[in-house]
Amino acid sequence: MSRERLQEFLSPFILDFEDRLEKCLDRADQYDKVLWDAMSYSLMAGGKRLRPVFLMLTGLSLGQKEEKLMPFAMALEMIHTYSLIHDDLPAMDNDDYRRGKLTNHKVFGEATAILAGDGLLNLAAEVMADEAVSSSDLNAVKAMQIILHAAGPKGMIAGQTADMLAEERSLGAEGLAYIDHNKTGQLITAAFLAGGALAGADDETMKTLEKAGFAIGTAFQIQDDILDIEGSQEVLGKPIGSDEKNHKETFVSVYGLEKAKQTSRELSEQAIQDLSCLPGDYGVLIRELVSFLINRVR
Amino acid sequence: MSRERLQEFLSPFILDFEDRLEKCLDRADQYDKVLWDAMSYSLMAGGKRLRPVFLMLTGLSLGQKEEKLMPFAMALEMIHTYSLIHDDLPAMDNDDYRRGKLTNHKVFGEATAILAGDGLLNLAAEVMADEAVSSSDLNAVKAMQIILHAAGPKGMIAGQTADMLAEERSLGAEGLAYIDHNKTGQLITAAFLAGGALAGADDETMKTLEKAGFAIGTAFQIQDDILDIEGSQEVLGKPIGSDEKNHKETFVSVYGLEKAKQTSRELSEQAIQDLSCLPGDYGVLIRELVSFLINRVR
Repeated sequence: MSRERLQEFLSPFILDFEDRLEKCLDRADQYDKVLWDAMSYSLMAGGKRLRPVFLMLTGLSLGQKEEKLMPFAMALEMIHTYSLIHDDLPAMDNDDYRRGKLTNHKVFGEATAILAGDGLLNLAAEVMADEAVSSSDLNAVKAMQIILHAAGPKGMIAGQTADMLAEERSLGAEGLAYIDHNKTGQLITAAFLAGGALAGADDETMKTLEKAGFAIGTAFQIQDDILDIEGSQEVLGKPIGSDEKNHKETFVSVYGLEKAKQTSRELSEQAIQDLSCLPGDYGVLIRELVSFLINRVR
Repeated sequence: MSRERLQEFLSPFILDFEDRLEKCLDRADQYDKVLWDAMSYSLMAGGKRLRPVFLMLTGLSLGQKEEKLMPFAMALEMIHTYSLIHDDLPAMDNDDYRRGKLTNHKVFGEATAILAGDGLLNLAAEVMADEAVSSSDLNAVKAMQIILHAAGPKGMIAGQTADMLAEERSLGAEGLAYIDHNKTGQLITAAFLAGGALAGADDETMKTLEKAGFAIGTAFQIQDDILDIEGSQEVLGKPIGSDEKNHKETFVSVYGLEKAKQTSRELSEQAIQDLSCLPGDYGVLIRELVSFLINRVR
């Protein structure tokens, strides 16, 4: 499937999604305006919205309505964005650019960037709790639980902690797998699982979605490492070579470029096969999307 | 009621509470150990546990079981603690001491302190979502919603943002009320409201609890401002005079010490009267507790 064709399929959803995110952050208050401006600056910076798209397509394919899925798609993107704001801070990766724009703390200062990150994480949980209360649907509470566990100190934050550790000393192949699994894999997997939970998927489907999600998450993390070497700042919107600059161990530095590309490809192919558990046009679309995304590095 | 008598009533609960918090943070993993150590360092630093106590006593008084209330009491303390860790950061208040111990970033470094704060906020939401899923109780989802809204960018984080703004320019009496209402008042109010929601309290009781909660929250904030002038570092566990040092506008600097003491007393008395909506021994206990706490500044 071509990029244009995928965009044609996805653009109505993305437009609706962006619109809802913007409304959710539209708040004018003289005392906290800077907080909402900072949250909005990073959230509306136009990421690929991959996690929301994965959640939506999974849920739609399994028969759930867009309306019921949307709050969780928004929450995923808020959580992803908050993690980027905090990762970019001077005390963490100290990055000046993200998605082609100055990082949050470069524009709003460190204090506001810390609060904007906190605010987005909290707002994500609020949006999900609001939906769970208004729908009185236990599947919504389960989806919320899945996303929060993936984002938390046994998930994404654990991965980020290990990633920091890896800048100080070699964690080896096992440590690297731990980082990829947690820092990137958990939240991407949660997108598939939350979509499944919201649609009331059976246990077998949930297990297959989990397997596919982790394969895709790992493939993407490896791909990021590859692009950090082979990509261009223009395409990525951030400086390349930052891992090497920071003497950071990556899948590429441990296994070499060829093995990295091969593994990334194999994982994607396995994931596409697993995702055949998703029926109908939306199932086709999600498999095409994964295939398209992984072709970026070939 | 004397301090000893209150302690006698409260200590079994506090011991159980500390025990549960500790178990919740007991995790040994070579790659993320430092994260959990940092979270535990601040969470187990022995605060007054006021928010948990308010939630528990409110819920117990209205007939809910301790078991059903505990996860939300824990979540409140995790949220309160994360906000302190982030507030103390060099980019924020840049404080070296908290509760008589070095602040989190002084011990673990800034990066880990940021992640430990993120981790505690996320874990708070996880603990609540876990309880909501396992109990399948819509009141649990409502309590979660109440706590998250109070903690978020329309609540505590908005108050913190305004508080930062107040260090740059005078926000006047109105701005000060906004800060007290949001930075301290919202989460304390949420303790009463979540306790009420978990016990299935009626609308009228919820309204009265809200009124009492905000009065207590404001009274405590004013009291903090007073103690920052009149207290001693030994008792508070942190340096006094920090507001003046930071040229920070407080209730005391705007209205004067006498008016501040009077307002704090009046608000507490109003709150104690409102809290007569809480029946039985637990109702007596919570009113005695508020009365005891406010006597600190007389």
